[in-house]
Amino acid sequence: MSLTRQPHLELLDYTITLASENVRSGKGGPFAALVVVDGKIIAEGVNLVTSTNDPTAHAEMVAIRRACAALGTFQLTGAEMYTSCEPCPMCLGAIFWARPAVVFYAASCQEAAAAGFDDALIYHQIALPGDQRLIPMVQVATPRSNHSFETWQHNQQRVDY
Amino acid sequence: MSLTRQPHLELLDYTITLASENVRSGKGGPFAALVVVDGKIIAEGVNLVTSTNDPTAHAEMVAIRRACAALGTFQLTGAEMYTSCEPCPMCLGAIFWARPAVVFYAASCQEAAAAGFDDALIYHQIALPGDQRLIPMVQVATPRSNHSFETWQHNQQRVDY
Repeated sequence: MSLTRQPHLELLDYTITLASENVRSGKGGPFAALVVVDGKIIAEGVNLVTSTNDPTAHAEMVAIRRACAALGTFQLTGAEMYTSCEPCPMCLGAIFWARPAVVFYAASCQEAAAAGFDDALIYHQIALPGDQRLIPMVQVATPRSNHSFETWQHNQQRVDY
Repeated sequence: MSLTRQPHLELLDYTITLASENVRSGKGGPFAALVVVDGKIIAEGVNLVTSTNDPTAHAEMVAIRRACAALGTFQLTGAEMYTSCEPCPMCLGAIFWARPAVVFYAASCQEAAAAGFDDALIYHQIALPGDQRLIPMVQVATPRSNHSFETWQHNQQRVDY
């Protein structure tokens, strides 16, 4: 890969500091993330899972949601993300939906696993057929399975995303 | 797999109806999801991406967040989820963090792709090394990469999740 964007090391370092502060504050896990546009921080996010009873409140998710709210858009085209740790599959998916240009991260998911955060399990589970996962995901096809898609495709007012 | 839980077809059908209604309301994409405990709907979610400028507001995410808020917990142990379509990788990750018992879905991600929702691309991207993805995810290891994890492990007041 020819990476045209280079990381700002001071932004990565700041992200790690936010992650450590989040632990000391008791708000959640040891993770933080930034959304950066043209070298300027648009949004910060920290892990808020336990303090907000929201299992989706990972640092990257919080940062993406706040950045989109601040910019008034559901796309982060051209933005850079900094995160203290390699994104888990949920956050990776959110990143692909938000579409920033690049993600720089400090710790690997193996290092996260050593600290007790087993993202690697989910990466492994994704590769399995749905009905063989620890949480089975089972298709129950019905004659109406595609009804909402047909409604979508016939809706001239739809906003694609 | 020996599946001990059987789907309630009327709940799946209701989910599809919610998904179609969501398109007609203009709130977002053709997706809906339920969180069910002991046969009772705890939370409903529909796709709200475009109407709330939140790329993470997929139906499953909205349903999980609402269910956790309603139950005052960050875990959905024992719950069942119904969703109009096979979860995308982001939602799959969220499901593994929320830990319901099972997920029943109607349409497959191939059917979603045919309707213009290319979850399959993200499933493919996940399997690639980070620096070879369409959105590069690049590790920038620093001497402080594990600082927040060390803070976490030394914090006696931490709430594991």
